[in-house]
Amino acid sequence: MTRYRITIEYDGRGFAGWQRQKQQASVQGTIEAALLVISGEDIAIHAAGRTDTGVHASGQVAHFDMARPFTPFRLLEAINARLRPQPIAIVDCAEAPGFHARFDCIGRSYRYRIINRRPPLTFQAGLAWRVPAPLDAVAMHVAAQRLVGTHDFTTFRSIHCESASPIKSLGRLAVARHGDEIIIEADARSFLRHQVRSMTGCLKLVGQGRWSADDLSAALAARHRHALGLNAPPDGLCFIQAHYR
Amino acid sequence: MTRYRITIEYDGRGFAGWQRQKQQASVQGTIEAALLVISGEDIAIHAAGRTDTGVHASGQVAHFDMARPFTPFRLLEAINARLRPQPIAIVDCAEAPGFHARFDCIGRSYRYRIINRRPPLTFQAGLAWRVPAPLDAVAMHVAAQRLVGTHDFTTFRSIHCESASPIKSLGRLAVARHGDEIIIEADARSFLRHQVRSMTGCLKLVGQGRWSADDLSAALAARHRHALGLNAPPDGLCFIQAHYR
Repeated sequence: MTRYRITIEYDGRGFAGWQRQKQQASVQGTIEAALLVISGEDIAIHAAGRTDTGVHASGQVAHFDMARPFTPFRLLEAINARLRPQPIAIVDCAEAPGFHARFDCIGRSYRYRIINRRPPLTFQAGLAWRVPAPLDAVAMHVAAQRLVGTHDFTTFRSIHCESASPIKSLGRLAVARHGDEIIIEADARSFLRHQVRSMTGCLKLVGQGRWSADDLSAALAARHRHALGLNAPPDGLCFIQAHYR
Repeated sequence: MTRYRITIEYDGRGFAGWQRQKQQASVQGTIEAALLVISGEDIAIHAAGRTDTGVHASGQVAHFDMARPFTPFRLLEAINARLRPQPIAIVDCAEAPGFHARFDCIGRSYRYRIINRRPPLTFQAGLAWRVPAPLDAVAMHVAAQRLVGTHDFTTFRSIHCESASPIKSLGRLAVARHGDEIIIEADARSFLRHQVRSMTGCLKLVGQGRWSADDLSAALAARHRHALGLNAPPDGLCFIQAHYR
């Protein structure tokens, strides 16, 4: 048995998220099906983070064990050949004895992309959230700092979240405008389910002037999902990087 | 009659290029069909540049005349509403008496995006050219300067090109690497059909080390399509901007 670490990029449209599903196509299930064909082995893969339906990744990391011998390069090529034409690509593969993609992960980085304009999206459709109302990205960035630190993020948590605790440490939440794009970068050891999308939805209300930074603080302090202003759609969310020592 | 100037963004996949076609969907034909529904008028639109099948635009400019009165804002909204769900968006609209999108245009800017990696593309599929062989972007940039200036670009011209003369003045051809992306930016008063794709194809050979800068110069000097090394696919090409006084 050899343990492999893979880095995965995918377009989340058309998948019911990362996690294996009985009835629907998932990223995990699609890669496991490719591994079965390649090796004849029933292989379970473990990822750094479970992304939801429609959420993308450029740097998802996972590990698995395989008995059939392969060089990492040949394995990467074999998986990618099997994955075609589905929009999933293994962008890196290495032997990694003892490595655990989830438990060894010390940080996760997500990026949320808003396109702040009235006209509909064309080649960015499905890859960004179009917000027609003019947004003040500076006000969003300033308010975002109210969420940085260790808090009970129950307000920003899906009712389907399976995390043992709602207390998380948000290391960084940065908002910056580049032309009509507003990029939100979020770094934490780990996130609750829907946390980035929920924080983004509320920051959009701040950007519109409908919420003040104090309203955002009050929503956080409420520790109740009913205090959530808005949950952003999955389209703009991308899992950028899993960090390891 | 009012003359309007519009700026158009589109995803070129699924269209047989800009120009109106009898049997196939084109960007021009799709916008003209929307204008017919809105105004009841049979309106011909004129663009700064005709893009080929599969080529994208973020800043195509066109003009047309319409009798039915509209404010530019309401017209932009009406066209976009009619274009849905096709991946074409009017991103700007203004009244422009006497303006001609093609004849008044004093410069055109294209961008070609290469993704230099082995793994297949996912969310960038159709929007970039994947080149597995490692490319030397610095060598590409240096060689590209051989093409800048006024030359007979017959080698880099499609046999279907309808331009009166093969002599064009290339103002700028810049190649730069950003991670695994290589961006080629080309500025000229006007281009021959396939010129940017043909220059890109030959620069890819330079980046691989298969061609030297002298080989590129020799191809230019040959003034014959047979001297072309490679024509890049449409996927990575985007019409960025049309320049006016």
